[in-house]
This record gives sequence, C-alpha cells and structure tokens, in this order.
Amino acid sequence: MIGGGRGAFIGGVHRLVAAMDGEAELVAGAFSSDPERSRASGADLGLDPQRVYADFAAMAEAESAAPPDQRLDFVVIVTPNDQHYPAAEVFLKLGFNVVCDKPLCMTLVEARRLQALVKQTKLVFALTHNYTGYPMVKLARDLVRTGHLGNLRKIVVEYPQGWLSTPLERTGQKQAAWRHDPKRSGMAGCLGDVGTHAENLARYITGLHMQELCADLTSFGPGRALDDDANILVRWEQGVKGLLHSSQISAGELNALAIRVYGTKAGLEWHQQRPDQLITKYLDQPTQIWDRGTGYLPPKIAAVCRLPAGHPEGYLEAFANLYREAFRAIRAQVAGKPVPKDTDFPTIADGVAGMAFLTAAVTSGRAGGKWRRVPR
Amino acid sequence: MIGGGRGAFIGGVHRLVAAMDGEAELVAGAFSSDPERSRASGADLGLDPQRVYADFAAMAEAESAAPPDQRLDFVVIVTPNDQHYPAAEVFLKLGFNVVCDKPLCMTLVEARRLQALVKQTKLVFALTHNYTGYPMVKLARDLVRTGHLGNLRKIVVEYPQGWLSTPLERTGQKQAAWRHDPKRSGMAGCLGDVGTHAENLARYITGLHMQELCADLTSFGPGRALDDDANILVRWEQGVKGLLHSSQISAGELNALAIRVYGTKAGLEWHQQRPDQLITKYLDQPTQIWDRGTGYLPPKIAAVCRLPAGHPEGYLEAFANLYREAFRAIRAQVAGKPVPKDTDFPTIADGVAGMAFLTAAVTSGRAGGKWRRVPR
Amino acid sequence: MIGGGRGAFIGGVHRLVAAMDGEAELVAGAFSSDPERSRASGADLGLDPQRVYADFAAMAEAESAAPPDQRLDFVVIVTPNDQHYPAAEVFLKLGFNVVCDKPLCMTLVEARRLQALVKQTKLVFALTHNYTGYPMVKLARDLVRTGHLGNLRKIVVEYPQGWLSTPLERTGQKQAAWRHDPKRSGMAGCLGDVGTHAENLARYITGLHMQELCADLTSFGPGRALDDDANILVRWEQGVKGLLHSSQISAGELNALAIRVYGTKAGLEWHQQRPDQLITKYLDQPTQIWDRGTGYLPPKIAAVCRLPAGHPEGYLEAFANLYREAFRAIRAQVAGKPVPKDTDFPTIADGVAGMAFLTAAVTSGRAGGKWRRVPR
Amino acid sequence: MIGGGRGAFIGGVHRLVAAMDGEAELVAGAFSSDPERSRASGADLGLDPQRVYADFAAMAEAESAAPPDQRLDFVVIVTPNDQHYPAAEVFLKLGFNVVCDKPLCMTLVEARRLQALVKQTKLVFALTHNYTGYPMVKLARDLVRTGHLGNLRKIVVEYPQGWLSTPLERTGQKQAAWRHDPKRSGMAGCLGDVGTHAENLARYITGLHMQELCADLTSFGPGRALDDDANILVRWEQGVKGLLHSSQISAGELNALAIRVYGTKAGLEWHQQRPDQLITKYLDQPTQIWDRGTGYLPPKIAAVCRLPAGHPEGYLEAFANLYREAFRAIRAQVAGKPVPKDTDFPTIADGVAGMAFLTAAVTSGRAGGKWRRVPR
Repeated sequence: MIGGGRGAFIGGVHRLVAAMDGEAELVAGAFSSDPERSRASGADLGLDPQRVYADFAAMAEAESAAPPDQRLDFVVIVTPNDQHYPAAEVFLKLGFNVVCDKPLCMTLVEARRLQALVKQTKLVFALTHNYTGYPMVKLARDLVRTGHLGNLRKIVVEYPQGWLSTPLERTGQKQAAWRHDPKRSGMAGCLGDVGTHAENLARYITGLHMQELCADLTSFGPGRALDDDANILVRWEQGVKGLLHSSQISAGELNALAIRVYGTKAGLEWHQQRPDQLITKYLDQPTQIWDRGTGYLPPKIAAVCRLPAGHPEGYLEAFANLYREAFRAIRAQVAGKPVPKDTDFPTIADGVAGMAFLTAAVTSGRAGGKWRRVPR
Repeated sequence: MIGGGRGAFIGGVHRLVAAMDGEAELVAGAFSSDPERSRASGADLGLDPQRVYADFAAMAEAESAAPPDQRLDFVVIVTPNDQHYPAAEVFLKLGFNVVCDKPLCMTLVEARRLQALVKQTKLVFALTHNYTGYPMVKLARDLVRTGHLGNLRKIVVEYPQGWLSTPLERTGQKQAAWRHDPKRSGMAGCLGDVGTHAENLARYITGLHMQELCADLTSFGPGRALDDDANILVRWEQGVKGLLHSSQISAGELNALAIRVYGTKAGLEWHQQRPDQLITKYLDQPTQIWDRGTGYLPPKIAAVCRLPAGHPEGYLEAFANLYREAFRAIRAQVAGKPVPKDTDFPTIADGVAGMAFLTAAVTSGRAGGKWRRVPR
Repeated sequence: MIGGGRGAFIGGVHRLVAAMDGEAELVAGAFSSDPERSRASGADLGLDPQRVYADFAAMAEAESAAPPDQRLDFVVIVTPNDQHYPAAEVFLKLGFNVVCDKPLCMTLVEARRLQALVKQTKLVFALTHNYTGYPMVKLARDLVRTGHLGNLRKIVVEYPQGWLSTPLERTGQKQAAWRHDPKRSGMAGCLGDVGTHAENLARYITGLHMQELCADLTSFGPGRALDDDANILVRWEQGVKGLLHSSQISAGELNALAIRVYGTKAGLEWHQQRPDQLITKYLDQPTQIWDRGTGYLPPKIAAVCRLPAGHPEGYLEAFANLYREAFRAIRAQVAGKPVPKDTDFPTIADGVAGMAFLTAAVTSGRAGGKWRRVPR
Repeated sequence: MIGGGRGAFIGGVHRLVAAMDGEAELVAGAFSSDPERSRASGADLGLDPQRVYADFAAMAEAESAAPPDQRLDFVVIVTPNDQHYPAAEVFLKLGFNVVCDKPLCMTLVEARRLQALVKQTKLVFALTHNYTGYPMVKLARDLVRTGHLGNLRKIVVEYPQGWLSTPLERTGQKQAAWRHDPKRSGMAGCLGDVGTHAENLARYITGLHMQELCADLTSFGPGRALDDDANILVRWEQGVKGLLHSSQISAGELNALAIRVYGTKAGLEWHQQRPDQLITKYLDQPTQIWDRGTGYLPPKIAAVCRLPAGHPEGYLEAFANLYREAFRAIRAQVAGKPVPKDTDFPTIADGVAGMAFLTAAVTSGRAGGKWRRVPR
C-alpha cells in the first residue's frame, strides 16, 4: 500500500474491504511521505518493518527484487492525487498490478500515458470509483441496458456535501488540507474529489460519454484556490441532456450522491445514502422500489448481494465488490491466464474519461462558463 | 372569469379556491374563445346567461357599465398565455382589479406595459404563482430572511414532470395542445409553464433576483416547436450560484417541484409533493423537520395554516392562501382605502421578473447556451 | 348545524367541506349549548338571526315548521359526543336527514335505537369517519376486495397522537376539556376519539368485523378519568389477527393514523400523513407506490380524485368526498327517489359497529385486559 | 465454530464480522451435525483438517487438550437452537469463553443453568442480539438514559417479516425447515427467531424488563407446529405500556424491525432498514433526524461509528460492533485480567431475560391469550 498512513481516511477503508472476502493480505507499504510516519503506520498494522518503506520508490525497488513466492500480487495507491501518477508509473513499469484511488492523476496527459503503459504491460489497473460497486447501481445499469427505460433522454446526477462549508483546511485537518492544495489535489477541488464520482456513476449506468459541457465553478471558502462548488450543464452522447452538480459547501448535506435517469418509457432514481433501494417510475403504472437481496433480482445482480434483503449493506460491502472483481482479474494475471472478459470494475479507461471530464470542466469554468468539448 | 371553460384544468381550481373562504362569488365570465363553449360553461356553473359573454372584450364593455352595487370587484384571467395581456389590459383600463394566471404574458415588453398600467391605475394585480401559498414555503422564506441559514451560497431549484413524455398534444388533449403551440404559449414550453414557478419560488424564498443565466433547452417530443426540457445555470444576486431545471419529459415524475437553499450555516429543502414539511440541515446538529400546523411555528406562519398539524393540507389550500391575501388588497382597493403593506401574494413585479427570466433563458437557449444577463 | 360554534375545530371543517362542491349552504344552526355563544357564532357566519337557535330542540321545532321550499335538506351534528344521540333522535323523528360526527353516541343501546329509527324513517344518516374519504384508502379497499392481496391474514392499524401528553384539559383548552370529561365524551377517551377511526378504517378496507378483542387501556395524564392510550389485540372475522393501538400521549406524534394489511400474496400500507400514496408489497416483485390522480387507477378511484397527480390533496378533500357521497343519497331522499345503491359513505351501521367496538374494548380494559366478544 | 456449515446463513456472517477488525481468526470447528458436511465445510474454509471435528463434543475434548499457545480463546455457537445449551455447557465446563447465537436455548431452566455456569466459571458469554450493535440504537439508549424523553410511557416494538408467507419449510429450504421444527427450534417459531430480538431491543434501549404480557400467537402456514405470527400486549416496569408484534407471514416485509419509545417530553423512532438514522419527536419543536457519523454525537456513540456520516453502515458493521465489545472482555479473561466494566454486548443475563419472555409469551398464547407474569 502506498499512502494511507496515520490520519488518513480512505487507506483504512481499502485495507478493510480488500480483506473482507479473505482474498488479500497486506504485507508491505510506504504509508506516508514522512518516513517516520510511514514506519509508525506500518507498526500499527503489524507489518514486518523490513517491508515498510520510506517512500514508494524504495518500496518499488525492494519489492521488485522479492523472490517469486513473496512477490506482491498488486499495490494499492491511496495517496493524495499528485502521487498517483508517479507511483502508478513506477509499479507498472516493474510489472505490478495496480489498484489506484480516484481521480486517476493530475492531468489528461498523465492519464493517457498511464493508459498506454497499462496497454503495453497488460497489467491490471483498477480505479476505485467505489460507488459503482453497489448492487442497486448495477441493477440500474442492467435496467438501462436492457431497455427498461426506453431511449434515454435526460440525466441528473449530483453529489452535494457540506463538510467544507467552513475553512476546515485552515485548522490543520489533514484531509481538508490536501484537497484544497493545488499541488497535491490538482486542477480541481470538489470536482475532482466527488464530481468525478458523479461523472463515473452516470457513465457506468448509462454507458454514455459526455460530449460537451458548460461549467460554473466557484470557490466559496475564503482564500480557496480550487472549486468547492460546481454546476455543470452536460450534453452526453446520443442526444442525452442533463446536468451534474457537486459541492462541498452545501451546508448540512452529508454524502448525498444521487442520480436520476429518464428515458422515453420510464425513469430511475438512486440515492447513495439509501443504497439498498432503486426506484423506477413509469408513465402509466405505479412507481416501483427494488430492494437489494430480493428473489426477483436478475441473477447477476443477486450474485453481488452479500446479505438477504432487509439486512442493510453499506459503503464497505460496495467497495469490497469492486475489489472482488478486481481480484478476479488480478488472480488471472498473476497466474498468467487471460483476464476474464466479464469483470466489472473501473479501469484505466474510466480514469482517462474522468480526467477528460475534469479537464473540460475546469477549462470551461476558467473561461467563465463556456461550452467545451470533452476529449475522447 | 376569463377562460376556464369546459375541458380546462386551472379554471376550476381558481373557482374552488377563490370561494374556499367564502369571500368571493363567481357572477360573470367569458369562458372560452368559442362563444358556444363559453355559454355552455356558464350554464354549467349556474350563472345568469346575461353575464356570460362570447369574449372578454364584450364582457369588459358590459360589466364596466354595471351599476356600482353589481360591479365586479375583480376579474380572473385563466386563458392560454396569449390572451393574458390583451385581457388584463382592457380590464385594467376599465378600472378592474385583476387576478391573472402565470406566466404573465408573451413578451417582456408586454409585461412592462402591464406594470406601467398597474402603477398608473393603482389597481390590484395578482399573479397566481400559487406554490408560494404553501405555509412551509413561507416558513422557508422566514428562516432565510431571519438569517437562520447564514449568508446564502447556493440554490438548486427544479420542476420535473413527465406528462409530456409522449406527444400528447397530437392526441387532441387540450392542455397539451395549447402549451406546445407557440401562438398560444409564447416563446417557451415547459420553461414558461413550470420553469417560471421554479424561478418564482427561489426568488420568493431568498429574495434574490437572477443576474445571469446559461440555458440548455431541448424539445425531445417529435415535432415540438417549444422546449420540453430546460437545464439552466444561474448566477443570482449577492454571489449566489446554482441551477434551475424543469422538464415535462422526465418520465414518471408527477409534479416534483422542489428547492434546496444552502447558506454558510445551514441548508433547507422543500418538496411540493410533501408540502407540509420543511427540512433544515445543519453543520453541527441534527436535521430538523418542521411540520405545518405545529405550535412552534412563528405566528405569521401559524396564521396561514388552516388545519392542525398532521391533517394534511394540499394544493388547494395553498392556492386559497394566495387568493386570501389578494382579497385583502382587493377589498381595500374597492373600499377606496390604501392597500395594506403586508399583503403576501405575487404581483405584477413578479410577472415582470418571470418574463425577464423567460426572455433571458430562451435567448440563451437559442444561442446554443450562452450566458445572458437577466434584465431588471 | 348543531354545535361547531366559536372555539370548536371540527365544525368549521364541516362547513368548509360541505360547501366545497357548491352543493350545500348553511342556513340555520344551534351552535352552542350556551345561547349567547350560539347567537354570536351564527352572526360570525352571517346567518339570519331568526334561524340561529339557543339549542337544538328549539331549532328542530322551528325548522320542522318551515315551508317546504325553505326546509332543511339535512342537519349536521358536531357537538361533543353526549349530544349526538338526543340531537339525532329529535331530527330523525321530525324527518330530517342527518350527518353526525363520530363516535356515534354514548352507548351501544343508544346506537341501536338510532339504527332502528333510521331504518324506520328511511332517512339518510351519514357518520363522518372522514378518513375513508381518501382516494388511496378507497384504492386499498378495492385491491383487497379484488383479491390483490390474496386471503387476508393480519391487520396492524394504529392512530398515535401526542397532543394530550400534558394535561391540556386543565388549561381550559376547550377540545381537550370535553374529550376527557366522561359526561360529554362517554365511556372512552382517546379510544372513542381516534380509536374508532382506526376500527372503521380497518373495516372499510377489509370488510371484516372484529370478533374478539383484548384491550389494555391506560390513563397516563394525571387525574384523567378516561383512557389516553389503548393497546388492543384483535381477532377479526375469517381468522384474521392483528392489533389496533391508539394514543394521545405518544409524544411528538401528530395525527399518525396508519394501516397495514397482509394477505397470502401481498401486503399494503397507508399513512394518513402521506395520504396521496398507497404502498403495496409483494412476495416476489418490487414494492409498488400508487399515486393518487394517476392514469392507472381504476375508474372509480380516479373519479374521487379532484386534482391531477402530484398536486397534493389533503384532509379537506377527503372529508368533502364523504359529503359528496352523502349528498347523492340526501338528494335522492329529498326528491323522494330511492337512494342509490352504490353510495360510499359511513352510515348508521358503521356507527353501531364503532360503538360495539368501543363497548367491548372498554369492558375488556376495565376487566384488566380480558378477551371480550365484540357484539354484532 | 460450532455449526455454520454449508447452506447456513448466520455462520458466514459470524466469520466475516468476527474478523472485520482483524482481532480473530477461525482455526477449528464442528460445522455440522453431519460429519461429512462438517469436514467439507472446514475444507471450504481452509482449516487444518485435524481441527475440523465430527461434532462439538469431539471438538471440545480435543481442543481442551491443546497446548496453551494454540488454545482457542473462545468458541462460537451458531447451530439451530437445540444445540446451544449442550454445546455451551460443555465448552464452558472446559473453560472456554462462548459466543452464542440467539435465542439462548430451549427452556428457561436451561437458561438459568447456563447462567449459573457462567457465574461460577467467570467466563465470558456473549449472546448475539446483533441489532443492539447499531450506533443509532446506542444513541437511542443514551438519549433515554439521560432523560431526553422524560419519563417513559409507551413502547411499540415490531419485527415483521414475510419470507415464510408460503410453506417454504416444505421445499427443503434449510433455514425454514429447522425454524419450524419444534425439536430444533424449541417452543416458538417466529417469536423465538425474531420476537426475541424485539424484546431485547426494547430492553436495551429503555433498560426496562417486561412484567406482564398477553400474547396472541398464530400459525398461519398450513401444518405449522409453531407460531409464525405473534401479537403481544406488554406491561413493562415502571408503568410503561405498549406492544410487541413479530411475524414471518407479513407478506412483502423484509426485515422490518422497528421501535418507537414515548416519554413525557419526547418520542423516538428507529428502523433497522434505515439504521443510520434515529428520529426524535417533540411536543414543541421540530422533529430531529440524527445521522450516524456526525460530529454532534456523544463521544461514546461516535466511537462506534466506523465510517463518516453519509457513508452507509449496515448489518455487518453493527454485528462487528458486538464482537468488538465481546473481544474486549475475552481478551481480558484470556489475559487473566478483570473484564472491563463498560463493555457493551448482550450477555447471559440477556439470554435469560429472552427465555423468560419466550416462556411467558408461549404460555400465554397456549392459554388463548391470558396475561402471564414474565419471570425474573
């Protein structure tokens, strides 16, 4: 694991969910850019001090020399955004499969370089857009793909949070601090942090890429260099219209990722804060609420439900579903077999699409809200 | 009453709610552009045939000659949009108070002419943006105005419907037909019909005018000349950002007008389909749900609740609240007294603001989504 | 109108909803047991002082002598419970149709006498269990009757309120005072006031009479002579089991009447505080939410919807539906025609069933919670 | 682990949640009463075949002879109910800490024997009433205990399920089969399976024991020997009244455990299917919704939240919280230290209370619904 030391949030989540199915074990890490903190974090986790490194470069070098039976099957990169590219690059070049937090990297150029590297090395690269791991998101995709909604017309996707309503980054709160530091976070603030999840969710469910967008980005927090609020008009492929908005200054909102998709025959609605239910609405019949874990779900959706209906699943199970699918690919790669075609996890292509979205949105926002094409 | 004959929807609502408090009685009308239908509608309503007219001009002429004790206190205009201006103009000129359906008229020029006429005649002009009649909308305004949310930052207001997902206007359905006929509906389709309610709601609660907007308008229905879907980025006064979207092709949505307003301290949320509750959310305390009719409401909000808490009020009571306030003004005007300063109903100024919004949005949309200033 | 003077709640509701469809006009009343208050209330309502009476006996005598064209079509009794029987009896005997608030009267003996009188006079007697006027309650009944749920097994019906959590009756609050005065309220407190609505709702939807019950009644309020909380096990006809609970000390609850009915194939759920929606749940398909006003409702349910879907209806519209149906019967009676067979409003038979329920429950409660048969 | 072999549900849950915090590892088991199935299950789990046993007696004997450094810290009993007592007894007698599924055993006599044994051996005994592991349930308890609701008056606790609406036990479905076999399930069906969770939840939150109850138990499923529906009036300590109902034939319900508690000042409401929120309602202020993971929670509640607010937790995290607390006690016991006083998990005393409830309810039900004291 690269990053995820003391004081981090998402590192611990990765460790927990990667282990949830008993398929992975943490054995080495460079947990912090501060060697002392890395060491201490490794000790917290009970690792062999020999395999706790001062930085990812040292780790890459040492671990690539490990004997085959001790060789890492994959590395997980959970650093602030600026380290994703260099860490991913070095590990890919040394032949390691990579699981990487989102957004993919700092620029679209970096993204395409990584994509080329993945293609060339034929390694597995998983990007943790974890919200697509929810079973009811997968059901939403299935309903859209099988024509349940008719031809699509409109998407409304949103990700409001309120935790940065105050200038939390000035209090030394670690997660707020790096997210509003352009050097570590990159070109975008809330848009990179949560807006990319919204873009990914919409694309996952509908299969549609954005073609053009027009973004109004604002930094409400005093002195913030990056956006903490983003409102975007979007034109997706196939004439689908709609909007995406994300925010970290929507006071009182927790983690309110939600999506609505409308077609000619029906609409659907999903809320991350009630993840076990998918709502579908019709022109001429009652609204339906589909519950996770029920007997009427299509078999491939039922297969990703861990608990019976009415026994709530949450964030961790969804995240673990992503890992479970990535592991199917990684196991095949490690065994020298072809990666199964039906694995279902976000890949380097999702990372490139996310960076293309971010680039277009930030460019649009900086131009005061001009329409920009989203590169493919 | 002008318009509202057989087959109309909103005319019957006006008749019911205007009478709900026993303060008004319908005595005359020109219910349709078809004289025969007007006559028949008048007969349905049990009116004196002498006071049922073939058109509004005839009605205006005849009624203005009525003896003082039979003189109409006000007229209600509930025709398709194209008749609002000519009907309002003729009645105002003859000294009648006017209650008029929204949107105000066909163009901003017309709107300003009516505004000048109202100013000059000192008559009462009420515009039936009825959704601001809900007690919990009034509470939302009160909370915003008293600083409960802190300084405002963001507004998300939306009005999705799905009833025009199919080309209903081609089936002869009367309400669909005129709404998608530019001659009767004007420059906009769903944006005029429901988008103006959304603009009005946001302005009513926050007191903020739109400054600039960027609109993406679409006609999904085959052969439609007017928009049936609108997605708009908005910059309000005082640096408030956000978006407004309205639709009549959001399949499965009924009448889902909703608003969220976020400030530095708190956010609020209201849904027209659950009108008796207002939700407020905080940075550091539990979410609150305020129920209509409860003892903890401010006295002026309590005063507009007709039923005890837990006894649902709906659309009609809210609409009747608008009339009740308009009647306070009309009674004063008829009695030759000054109109009370604290009446709370949408006026000609709201109509002008609505037409300014419509004009800017349609202009922006026609330009492919360019930012446009909203005239004041 | 008998009762419903200044300070009353339900009288005003009756006046409003009886007039909502323009079918009735208030012309006479004995509004209070205090002649002065009656007079003042009549003046408030703009009635001819000649037709405002000091008591219902005087009113009955005078009005029965009115010329045919001025004769009252019906009287409405909205007094405290103790006056229902004497008032109803005198008016029925003089040939007037009666609309009466619930519970029907003070004892089962009185109830049966009224039933005999109604049978003998062939007059219309409507009992205002208004909650059965909601369209979605009628849909619930329709679904049950047409076998949508399969064979019924269980009913859970509840009516929690919290407004008597404190001894409000000691503060002079008029509505609290009479409800906890056995002389005016009768044998039961919250059970008569709201529990009877719950019994009626369950019977309306399922068609099932209670056979046996076991009641635990409590008076939590200091010094209260009557129950303010009731928990009852119920055995309905056809082997259906379940429970009914009602309360006025459930702190924080408003008017939370709700019912769940379960059959072999499906269950349903309705909440008075969200009256426009009915929820149905299945063994093997998604939960459904049925919205009032939609196109997929059976025609007879659609016929009682006053507004399009998404435009909330509430308590008043439901109450007015009851009156509308009663008026169909009253019009026929007044015209000397047979009362239509398909009218849908609570009758004297519902009143008798309600009193039978109350009697059994109070008897059970007083015996410390013994099973009692519910008389038929 | 005793039980929990192939085809079981809850065994897998125990394995997952016990390991969630990295504090426990499965090393031995007797997974089935069928030795071959036990062996196969152990192999599925990757255990040393030497430590996979044909039955719990063999396991107890062999494992008690293990060298100290390999000695089991605790055993987990997840068999059908009939094996709980014999398995627990043998392991306790041999000095092992025990985690046992609920209900505790088959009779109150067995329960008291186990209680005596636990007392005598000073071993840790944890009973997995897992629903009390939810943070918002703990908040509910905290609010009640600190007087937020005032003096308690009423409890409504319910646990409806619908999965046994059809005679699933006749299809060979393993979980349905043993639950409706009196030899394996004991004296009660749904009441033991889910009703005991409801009793435990109410007691956990309020601290109140049941004093008397009156139960109406029914077996709707054809040929069922045990109840599949239970409706119970309850009198708790301190004059608190209310009811408990549980069902497995409430068609369409999933796992709808819910509780409402009312006091003199406020009420609270919690629903297992939306576990991250607690609702509190007041006499004179807005309803509050408390979200798990927020900054305003008391520190001891915050301490049991694993994820930030808005990132849903579910059934597994709650269950793991129970294990985490039990492990605090087990670690102390194994280390020969005093068990901390502030551990928060259900113990043998909860098991005894649950069996006392079951015994009283079944006795009451068999007597046709007579009041019975609940033994202490």
